[in-house]
Amino acid sequence: MADKVKVALNGYGTIGKRVADAVALQDDMALVGIAKTKPDYEAFVAAGKGYDIYAVDPVKAESKFKAAGIPMAGSSKDMIKKADIVVDAAPSGIGAENKKIYDKMGKPAIFQGGEKHEMTGTSFNAAANYDEAIGKDFVRVVSCNTSALCRLVYAIDTAFGIKNALVTLVRRGGDPDDIKRGPINAIVPDPITLPSHHGPDVQTVLPHIRISTAALKVPTTLMHTHSVHFSVDGTPTRDQVLNALKKWRRLWLIPGWFNIKSTGDIMEMGRVLGRPKGDMMENCIYEDSVSADGDSIELFQAVHQESDVIPENIDCIRAMMGMEKDKKKSMDRTDRSLGIGDFKPWKVAPPSKAGKVSVELPM
Amino acid sequence: MADKVKVALNGYGTIGKRVADAVALQDDMALVGIAKTKPDYEAFVAAGKGYDIYAVDPVKAESKFKAAGIPMAGSSKDMIKKADIVVDAAPSGIGAENKKIYDKMGKPAIFQGGEKHEMTGTSFNAAANYDEAIGKDFVRVVSCNTSALCRLVYAIDTAFGIKNALVTLVRRGGDPDDIKRGPINAIVPDPITLPSHHGPDVQTVLPHIRISTAALKVPTTLMHTHSVHFSVDGTPTRDQVLNALKKWRRLWLIPGWFNIKSTGDIMEMGRVLGRPKGDMMENCIYEDSVSADGDSIELFQAVHQESDVIPENIDCIRAMMGMEKDKKKSMDRTDRSLGIGDFKPWKVAPPSKAGKVSVELPM
Repeated sequence: MADKVKVALNGYGTIGKRVADAVALQDDMALVGIAKTKPDYEAFVAAGKGYDIYAVDPVKAESKFKAAGIPMAGSSKDMIKKADIVVDAAPSGIGAENKKIYDKMGKPAIFQGGEKHEMTGTSFNAAANYDEAIGKDFVRVVSCNTSALCRLVYAIDTAFGIKNALVTLVRRGGDPDDIKRGPINAIVPDPITLPSHHGPDVQTVLPHIRISTAALKVPTTLMHTHSVHFSVDGTPTRDQVLNALKKWRRLWLIPGWFNIKSTGDIMEMGRVLGRPKGDMMENCIYEDSVSADGDSIELFQAVHQESDVIPENIDCIRAMMGMEKDKKKSMDRTDRSLGIGDFKPWKVAPPSKAGKVSVELPM
Repeated sequence: MADKVKVALNGYGTIGKRVADAVALQDDMALVGIAKTKPDYEAFVAAGKGYDIYAVDPVKAESKFKAAGIPMAGSSKDMIKKADIVVDAAPSGIGAENKKIYDKMGKPAIFQGGEKHEMTGTSFNAAANYDEAIGKDFVRVVSCNTSALCRLVYAIDTAFGIKNALVTLVRRGGDPDDIKRGPINAIVPDPITLPSHHGPDVQTVLPHIRISTAALKVPTTLMHTHSVHFSVDGTPTRDQVLNALKKWRRLWLIPGWFNIKSTGDIMEMGRVLGRPKGDMMENCIYEDSVSADGDSIELFQAVHQESDVIPENIDCIRAMMGMEKDKKKSMDRTDRSLGIGDFKPWKVAPPSKAGKVSVELPM
């Protein structure tokens, strides 16, 4: 194994903090650090993990970091300079601004699904089009919903050939710590115009798929749920459909006897398994919902909006940096490191002493 | 150290599964097993952890366990027979029925706050009245809200003397996986009659405290929040109040710079710290809310309804079994084992291979 590839995280929200933790778990990658605007509980925990924290505006932030007792490693540009590749997890729309910086500094970068496809020209899903990202400088990992759709569409398309896909996405209103988002008491066609952007977004990865999507937002924070209908070539049996899905570790068929009846139960499963942050990175497909009738396939799948793109970011790093040409080998490596497709309970380990920060906290 | 005390868990819901995991972490206790009515995802994960699973009705359950591939260790009575003490975590009201069985089998037992005080005659909170439970056969650990109130009331009362306590409890509607509970769009005075049962419930532990409580339910699942007002003897300064709270590890003062603005952020903190299930077992007191004015003390505290009673159950076992006479030593041991008052990130450990169950799951 050559030297580890050095990865910097620009942005440390829902996606950024998870990609940072995932990078730290890869034995072919090293985390240079993370960038934050100011110290808060996320910075406190990141410092406790031993991550170097860079400030977006160090002049403005220095006194705040000092007051909090959290070491500031430098500016976010210092961080980018040290990196071989940047994962940009800034809020939607900021990535376009940041791209100019990466361009000037000659650093390849990954953007998230909130940015436009046209910005990079290449959109990514590991199963569906890993090869397209190999050697590229700028790639966009598609959003949580689109990632989940790409995984499923690719599995069914390679097995049977998709004639047409119709999907209704029932989306969570906000993340669990996102108190400013809504709706809190309504069902919102979002957007009202059809199709939603998700179908065209799938086509940035899989251009030959005929797919139409409709999306609604509802008052919940845990996961999205997709109601999926495929018309396929031929007339596969239900068992053939189940077998086609079982081939992919990132598609999890929830057994009926698990008595999992909602996204509430699925996320509770993540908690009792002891998965980091309780995340469920697989597409969670209710096995009892999988139906096959003539050329039709139907199912419900739940999608954990906070975490399902994390393994895709890791694979995207490997593709862009030319670390691995074989998508299956990269995905396998990622999945093993993150426990994807592994339903054994994670070990309960005591608090890490790895951190270099010791902030005085009231006991 | 003598032999480990053998603990059986009768009931494996929100509280039961957490007490089981906590017992497994104590080096002076051994988990005999857990009792379930049927196999489901909770049983699957418990088996993966290596817990023995007993069936409440083994004749009825046998074929279901067999179909799921989960070994059934026997009947719940077999489990109770092997135990030195039973923690009853059955749904509210069932404990009274179960008590007859424990009585007949001569086994001491702990009940949860959903049962009536009169059933045991002794209600328990570790800080407030540990000594009362020493050597007792039947003890009730008070509910999540009452446990949090007892901790806080005891800290303030021992420091300053409480003349009067007024608390408004804003309660979560249901737990995250509890899809049948409500309200989903209302604020419910619950009960409408005043005071709520919480004040009298505090008095089952601390009879001399004058306290009145009012409770309302709202549409959220994450935590309860208490709005607290104390009238005390004398006129303590804010610093004196903060110092009185800092003495207790189960009272956590959230620093203002953490930028924690809601129960959503507090539970997110539990997730990013990597705490098991993301639990926050401490009373989470917003430091910025703590006010002192004349003989008045005011503050907001958030209470994680799923987990704050877990350390209390562990201490209660030690008191009843005479394993430790000094409450501070028991609490310290419990807190260290569960990471209470420790804000270093927990280690991310790979899935445990400890389990003896290997159920074929679709990948």
